[in-house]
Amino acid sequence: MVFDTLWLNSQNLKHMNNQKFYFDNSIDYDEISIQLRIEIIEILKASIVNDPSKASVILSLEENDSLQNEGYIINQNENNITISSSTTKGLMYGYYGFLRRLSNNETLKNIISVPSQSIRMINHWDQIDGSVERGYSGESIFFGKAGRNENVDNGSFDLRSIEGSPFRNDFNRIEWYARLLASVGINAISLNNVNVRGLATRLIVHPFIDDVAKIAKIFQRFGIKTYLAINFGAPKHLGDLNTNDPLDANVRQWWKDTVAEIYKTIPFFGGFVVKADSEGEPGPYQYGRNHADGANMLGEALEPFGGLVIWRTFVYNSKQDWRDRSTDRAKAASENFAPLDGMFNDNVILQVKFGPIDFQTREPLTPLFGTMKKTNLILEAQITAEYLGHQIDINYSATQWQSMLDFDTKSQAKNSLVKEIIKSDSVNPQNSGMVAVSNVGMDDNWTGNKLAQANLYAWGRLSWDNDVSALDILKEWISQTFHDSDDDTQQVIYEIMSTSNETYEKYNAPLGVGFMVRPHYHYGVSVNGYEYDRWGTYHFADRNGVGVDRTIKTGTGYTKLYSPEVSAMYENLETMPDELLLFFHHVPYTHLLHSGKTVIQHIYDTHFEGYDTVLEYIDKWSRLENKIDTITFKNVFDRLQMQKENSLEWRDQINTYFYRMSGIPDEKGRVIYA
Amino acid sequence: MVFDTLWLNSQNLKHMNNQKFYFDNSIDYDEISIQLRIEIIEILKASIVNDPSKASVILSLEENDSLQNEGYIINQNENNITISSSTTKGLMYGYYGFLRRLSNNETLKNIISVPSQSIRMINHWDQIDGSVERGYSGESIFFGKAGRNENVDNGSFDLRSIEGSPFRNDFNRIEWYARLLASVGINAISLNNVNVRGLATRLIVHPFIDDVAKIAKIFQRFGIKTYLAINFGAPKHLGDLNTNDPLDANVRQWWKDTVAEIYKTIPFFGGFVVKADSEGEPGPYQYGRNHADGANMLGEALEPFGGLVIWRTFVYNSKQDWRDRSTDRAKAASENFAPLDGMFNDNVILQVKFGPIDFQTREPLTPLFGTMKKTNLILEAQITAEYLGHQIDINYSATQWQSMLDFDTKSQAKNSLVKEIIKSDSVNPQNSGMVAVSNVGMDDNWTGNKLAQANLYAWGRLSWDNDVSALDILKEWISQTFHDSDDDTQQVIYEIMSTSNETYEKYNAPLGVGFMVRPHYHYGVSVNGYEYDRWGTYHFADRNGVGVDRTIKTGTGYTKLYSPEVSAMYENLETMPDELLLFFHHVPYTHLLHSGKTVIQHIYDTHFEGYDTVLEYIDKWSRLENKIDTITFKNVFDRLQMQKENSLEWRDQINTYFYRMSGIPDEKGRVIYA
Repeated sequence: MVFDTLWLNSQNLKHMNNQKFYFDNSIDYDEISIQLRIEIIEILKASIVNDPSKASVILSLEENDSLQNEGYIINQNENNITISSSTTKGLMYGYYGFLRRLSNNETLKNIISVPSQSIRMINHWDQIDGSVERGYSGESIFFGKAGRNENVDNGSFDLRSIEGSPFRNDFNRIEWYARLLASVGINAISLNNVNVRGLATRLIVHPFIDDVAKIAKIFQRFGIKTYLAINFGAPKHLGDLNTNDPLDANVRQWWKDTVAEIYKTIPFFGGFVVKADSEGEPGPYQYGRNHADGANMLGEALEPFGGLVIWRTFVYNSKQDWRDRSTDRAKAASENFAPLDGMFNDNVILQVKFGPIDFQTREPLTPLFGTMKKTNLILEAQITAEYLGHQIDINYSATQWQSMLDFDTKSQAKNSLVKEIIKSDSVNPQNSGMVAVSNVGMDDNWTGNKLAQANLYAWGRLSWDNDVSALDILKEWISQTFHDSDDDTQQVIYEIMSTSNETYEKYNAPLGVGFMVRPHYHYGVSVNGYEYDRWGTYHFADRNGVGVDRTIKTGTGYTKLYSPEVSAMYENLETMPDELLLFFHHVPYTHLLHSGKTVIQHIYDTHFEGYDTVLEYIDKWSRLENKIDTITFKNVFDRLQMQKENSLEWRDQINTYFYRMSGIPDEKGRVIYA
Repeated sequence: MVFDTLWLNSQNLKHMNNQKFYFDNSIDYDEISIQLRIEIIEILKASIVNDPSKASVILSLEENDSLQNEGYIINQNENNITISSSTTKGLMYGYYGFLRRLSNNETLKNIISVPSQSIRMINHWDQIDGSVERGYSGESIFFGKAGRNENVDNGSFDLRSIEGSPFRNDFNRIEWYARLLASVGINAISLNNVNVRGLATRLIVHPFIDDVAKIAKIFQRFGIKTYLAINFGAPKHLGDLNTNDPLDANVRQWWKDTVAEIYKTIPFFGGFVVKADSEGEPGPYQYGRNHADGANMLGEALEPFGGLVIWRTFVYNSKQDWRDRSTDRAKAASENFAPLDGMFNDNVILQVKFGPIDFQTREPLTPLFGTMKKTNLILEAQITAEYLGHQIDINYSATQWQSMLDFDTKSQAKNSLVKEIIKSDSVNPQNSGMVAVSNVGMDDNWTGNKLAQANLYAWGRLSWDNDVSALDILKEWISQTFHDSDDDTQQVIYEIMSTSNETYEKYNAPLGVGFMVRPHYHYGVSVNGYEYDRWGTYHFADRNGVGVDRTIKTGTGYTKLYSPEVSAMYENLETMPDELLLFFHHVPYTHLLHSGKTVIQHIYDTHFEGYDTVLEYIDKWSRLENKIDTITFKNVFDRLQMQKENSLEWRDQINTYFYRMSGIPDEKGRVIYA
């Protein structure tokens, strides 16, 4: 294979080649259990025996309600290790859980593992011209053969000019990807970008649905359901109807017929992901209907087949006027969806970005968590580093995700942490979970920066087990990925990666204010890049202070959207956490943080520290030459040089901008360019 | 014809159809005099008679040194009008001068007209893929048939994948363009963009030079010499040499051979336009040579054929660091070229942008004028509205050009105005003049905004006659273009256009500071768009003040590059003209202008005024409905709506930016968004 095998590197598993597996007679021969046998023989290079007494590992099925339909038990006995589950899918997860623990020298005694979340999903923003929106790792692994058709995703693309299939058909690579995902517990994937335009609109019909089926079959063998992002305007585009009105009988019938045909082709199809009425996409608002009308229509069509509708809440006025301080994009998801709580069908799930704006380095939790009590929710994050350094800058992001999951919404007396209420506030606990946007592409190492593989790994692991620490997951990943390296080397990598998210935040937009990035690209500093634009992304810095007043008392009233306790915490400066101060308040540069520093001094200090830490990373990484493989060494070394340039520009432009504004010198007398 | 015929609209000339022209026997049958006969019969629809006593217009050649080789005399006698010149080219200019004066009801008695400048040129920045760099009027009129080859101008373009010829071959349109240019006195044109890359490098060799010849032949019939922009790296690209060193014998021979072959194909070829060592283009610096070495090498190759080298002085460090205030892009042309004064061959001309930076709304004169005393110079301006509103916003720019020509360099006791010294400071007065970047494209009206036709017209007229007022030229253009409209209508158009350049300046970057535009596009406001970039384009605004200190005493020392009197004027605040203050000085917002206003109040006032004037334009223009043709009415009306949006954003973003910075409220209490 020409591609990196990531944490499932066969070298990594070599010491397990002598394992002998026994499949108990209770285990059916279904797609998954057959695949499991293939994994053992072809990938692990171990053997399967027919006599349990000769086996070192015994797999068996047993009824066990506490395991639900994906959990597993591992237990080390005197003579062997048993892996059991109530489903073959659970066995597969048990198998990979066994391999991981063995590889990391963890205990195998009395392990009971049940996933924290039911849906553990990856969204691809892959375009069928082979490009990936917000992708930083090469072309799509699914699409690209018709990559010459540059405008294939534009609405105006002429079907007659397609050259060949837009499917890449690199099944070898897709299978390895499915293996990677299954090994960390992912059970759902959507293949195409949520902005569905041009040719991509046709993915849900023949002949493209037949190509999707080939991919879906591979994922199915690994227990992963395949979803497609759809265009809400498909009835007009594809069905020659004169409306997309979700209450129109013809429209409803068109979707029912279309869905029935999809399930005829892909019986194990997952359902639809929908971005509607957002950033120019069509949706129910165009017909005077609400999002429940739109989502439930699709839900009804999918219901007979057990399919799901995953409906994004990323709906806001994307033509704001910077002069108007009353419109607050942060409130948009709540304003659009909170009134609809309880109105969505059982198989409809709202997909909610973790923060109220858009995957910034630091945002508070979206208030919909905790306020939607009778609606299935799925929390959305980005594995791809759109605002987090484009997989050029090192950024292990699982610490950020974990802080979201652990946030206490105070929406009820107890068990009100986000990770708890995703499931408990749902209508159907099976239809809730976590989803993140993929960071993989056709690059040899899949993720551009080798170290960004850790984010893919961590997303799966964290989705399965919300309680394992993000830093422990990092250690797992390092020990599997750099299995041949000595402890010192692994420790250096850990030191860099475990602090990398914090370091990135230090040289970025300060104190949660966000969006000081180059417009459109989202890499590189531009303090005023979004300040006078139409996207509702402002910092309001003037000569006296900075920040967005979202308080009830004097601001946009956004803080009111939280539970009373959380609302009070954010409303009052005394209880306001430093790291989000400028997201919620407009304060003078001389405002004193709880840390004891002024805002302006905090800005200077963190920006000097951020850059200095990158220099330390370079120093540390340089010491790894000849201790790790040269490809990985150079891959990260080269990106660290770019990160150095990037963090230097962030440091100096941010410091200069705020020095010019405030006129307040650095207490420590460091160089700030006037 | 599907395209607009501009000021040579046949309707416009209808009343002259009954004219009878007589060609005196002194007139040879050369390309130009034959074309002149065609103009009279086919375009004017008048007649040519063989008996002078029956003629109303008599054309004749006569020796007259004072006319040089392009001037003409028109005189109205009792029975007829005579047009005479010492060349057929002069006769053609006389013919068009006659038509214009007749059309505008001007006197025809005792007219002697000799051009102010020898070379009156247009540069096209047309790419051979059909696009036009900084073009706002559709595709190139010269190139485009191979427009499907999107990357044809990239260095990496594969020649084998050309589909058809890159030449548009719309000779009908090219001929009309030549006619338009000749009618206002243009005598030189370069066809392709000065950034010469990919396929465009090959324009100077077969087979493309044969296509160039077809175009050049048309222009030749109108007395216009055709030039090509070249890539200094052509010897390596096309000649398989291993160097482009201008002192290398093989390189020199390659250019000689190439030039000889060009002249074999196009005997009336004009020469080369060269952008070297600039913004990434190759040049002599790469080989440790200077610009005289590079230009003279080409000059030697062209000399036997009477060809010219037009060498741009737009050379600067385009990778500046915003932190470094000692590097000053404004000084670059002088630093690179002033030391070479007197070292250029007789047939080499330096092409100098009028301002030291890059065609901003307001810049001082480039200091090279007045300091280069023994070098042929050609002054460069833009007809295309790169920084002046993209031919969306109305902007009659000839007033700006005229103020440059009339600037007194004080470089000598008298006759030191720019328009005087261009010629008098040259080595060969024939090899000096004026050049501007074209604003035409394949749009039906050639210039996007119909009113932008006036700039093309004015460039020609002003090049020929530096002393005619830009506003009189505007009147001429209006009376020819809107010949059927009543005086009130013409007056409204005049009121709008005559103030349009000033209006645009009002809502733009204030007081000469420049570059507060959206990066790359150069349309629309972005106050900090270029502030932290690599192009040397900064305003240095902070909470106390704004502007670039270019003084000798405390700044970059740029002011020293002028003659002592001009230098003193710019160095001292007492004598500093308001409109350029921030180009030369960094001052507090409370600095008092000669106008009696503070800088900050001036910013507020002009920005409110600018937008209000645009509203007045809309009001005025709206009154023209049904008084002018509907296509023109709608063309300008639609653009005025865009100009309104644009000027509103400029007004509010500039005012808000400086209010946030300064904290000083508007004296008049108008709305400034905090």
